[in-house]
Amino acid sequence: MNIPDFEDVRAAHMRILPHIHRTPVLTSSYLSHLSGARLFFKCENLQKVGAFKARGACNAVFGLSDADAARGVATHSSGNHAAALCYAAAARGIDATVVMPRNAPAAKKAAVRSYGGRIIECEPTQAAREAALAQVIAENGADVVHPYDDPRVIAGQATCALEMIEDIDDLDAVVAPIGGGGLISGTCLALSTLSPETRIYAAEPENADDAYRSFHAGEIVLQDAQQSVADGLKTNLKPRTWHFVSRYVTDVLLASETEILDAMYLTWERMKIIIEPSSAVPLAIILKNQELFRDQRVGVIITGGNVDIRHCPGCK
Amino acid sequence: MNIPDFEDVRAAHMRILPHIHRTPVLTSSYLSHLSGARLFFKCENLQKVGAFKARGACNAVFGLSDADAARGVATHSSGNHAAALCYAAAARGIDATVVMPRNAPAAKKAAVRSYGGRIIECEPTQAAREAALAQVIAENGADVVHPYDDPRVIAGQATCALEMIEDIDDLDAVVAPIGGGGLISGTCLALSTLSPETRIYAAEPENADDAYRSFHAGEIVLQDAQQSVADGLKTNLKPRTWHFVSRYVTDVLLASETEILDAMYLTWERMKIIIEPSSAVPLAIILKNQELFRDQRVGVIITGGNVDIRHCPGCK
Repeated sequence: MNIPDFEDVRAAHMRILPHIHRTPVLTSSYLSHLSGARLFFKCENLQKVGAFKARGACNAVFGLSDADAARGVATHSSGNHAAALCYAAAARGIDATVVMPRNAPAAKKAAVRSYGGRIIECEPTQAAREAALAQVIAENGADVVHPYDDPRVIAGQATCALEMIEDIDDLDAVVAPIGGGGLISGTCLALSTLSPETRIYAAEPENADDAYRSFHAGEIVLQDAQQSVADGLKTNLKPRTWHFVSRYVTDVLLASETEILDAMYLTWERMKIIIEPSSAVPLAIILKNQELFRDQRVGVIITGGNVDIRHCPGCK
Repeated sequence: MNIPDFEDVRAAHMRILPHIHRTPVLTSSYLSHLSGARLFFKCENLQKVGAFKARGACNAVFGLSDADAARGVATHSSGNHAAALCYAAAARGIDATVVMPRNAPAAKKAAVRSYGGRIIECEPTQAAREAALAQVIAENGADVVHPYDDPRVIAGQATCALEMIEDIDDLDAVVAPIGGGGLISGTCLALSTLSPETRIYAAEPENADDAYRSFHAGEIVLQDAQQSVADGLKTNLKPRTWHFVSRYVTDVLLASETEILDAMYLTWERMKIIIEPSSAVPLAIILKNQELFRDQRVGVIITGGNVDIRHCPGCK
């Protein structure tokens, strides 16, 4: 199993810099006061394609040889990785094919199409996604870029924490959402070298708590067809991401659907940024576990902003 | 009539720096492509209190002598200036009283209260506001900080364009909304010294077109009780802001209510930031006057993000 190391992260950052935004780290006196901590929000919702996924996708696509690139790239994804891969492929001038669940948000499908990607729809289960993808590969020999179980993607996602550590000193903790574990793995990879004292918390919906169960069981627990408003976090860990989660994550903390939506709207209202439900899980767990973070400097990774705002979930 | 000069702008920036955010300048490939120009968005929606008004208010409050400050400050405002003045007053530890129209958005009233300000409600006309304010002054001798007809406020608002010019070279044009003209006056003040070749466009709702009519009449045209979804832009020019508008503004351009809301949601969706309707007028006029900006570097001032997002206007 190919596990990326910190040199891969440095190489990824150099490779992707021309194709990504250096996203700002924002603060909110109100949210810091409310939480009792000092919060620093790394705003990947302001990233290319509206999500940190641009980092891993660009690292994978721009690391391909010309011969491999010519056959195009393909993936299955809940949405942001798909858009990101199409963005990266378009930037390099190659084809991208995406297998997506038919119930993925319209905004995410539209984003894929807007970057010139080809969409193949499937049923919303992991098994259906993988079968459809295998068929695509058989047809055109595309390079498969998995949304998280790929060392190139993990090294790319690690550049987010790398930049945060460059911008903000002395973080006591970093909180990031966990789905399949690509972002958390990258965060572990960067912080274990650059700031090994910083605690790493993975934030997960109660309704999609496979990582929480895995963490407490000491091995990967699989759960199919998880349903949460945090639609980016319904996937399961893989051995490559479990490698990082099991070694470097301090704890996995859970938030309910209501807590996630409350934190999302609170962020919209007070920070004036659009974040998707998945991105609100870290703030939700910080607000409900204040004793863990009181008076500490806490980095929060805002992972994306792709949500159907005119039909926003739970909107009054 | 006291007209601020560029030295006042430099002094204002030094004075307010500890109390404001250095807001980021964001770009969007999508919106640049759509407009045919290269757009740079100075994001004052991410400013303290969610609006550029924090700049002028802080400059006024922190420039007061201790004796004057002790009597507190007061204003009438459509909202953002009110919240900003309360923020600045709280930061200095003094009282703030605010006269607000009773139909001001709930989010803006809540913001004033959250900063410890005292609200006195009045009818939504300029005359009613001014009468109520006169009564407040008679009672406590507070220093009145007008939302735009005040040299301290204009010098403070000018720091927004100052920062934008520091961050972005060679802007061909800057587009900012116009209500009473405080931000545009400050923009004129900064650019006429720092970048005199940069054209300055004022963006105004068709439904509140007093500045447009003034510009074409060559003198201030007053219109009472203007109604627009861009609620920050319903006020009239004053001689002090007309001084700048008449000398330095290239043109005043208009957008319809629908165009404003379309530009607002487009910005939410593509830039992942919450902007209020007033802040969408510049993008609306850029999109409908593409021949003026084609292939040019255009600065856009996003003035604020205070909007009731759960009851957003025109939301489907």
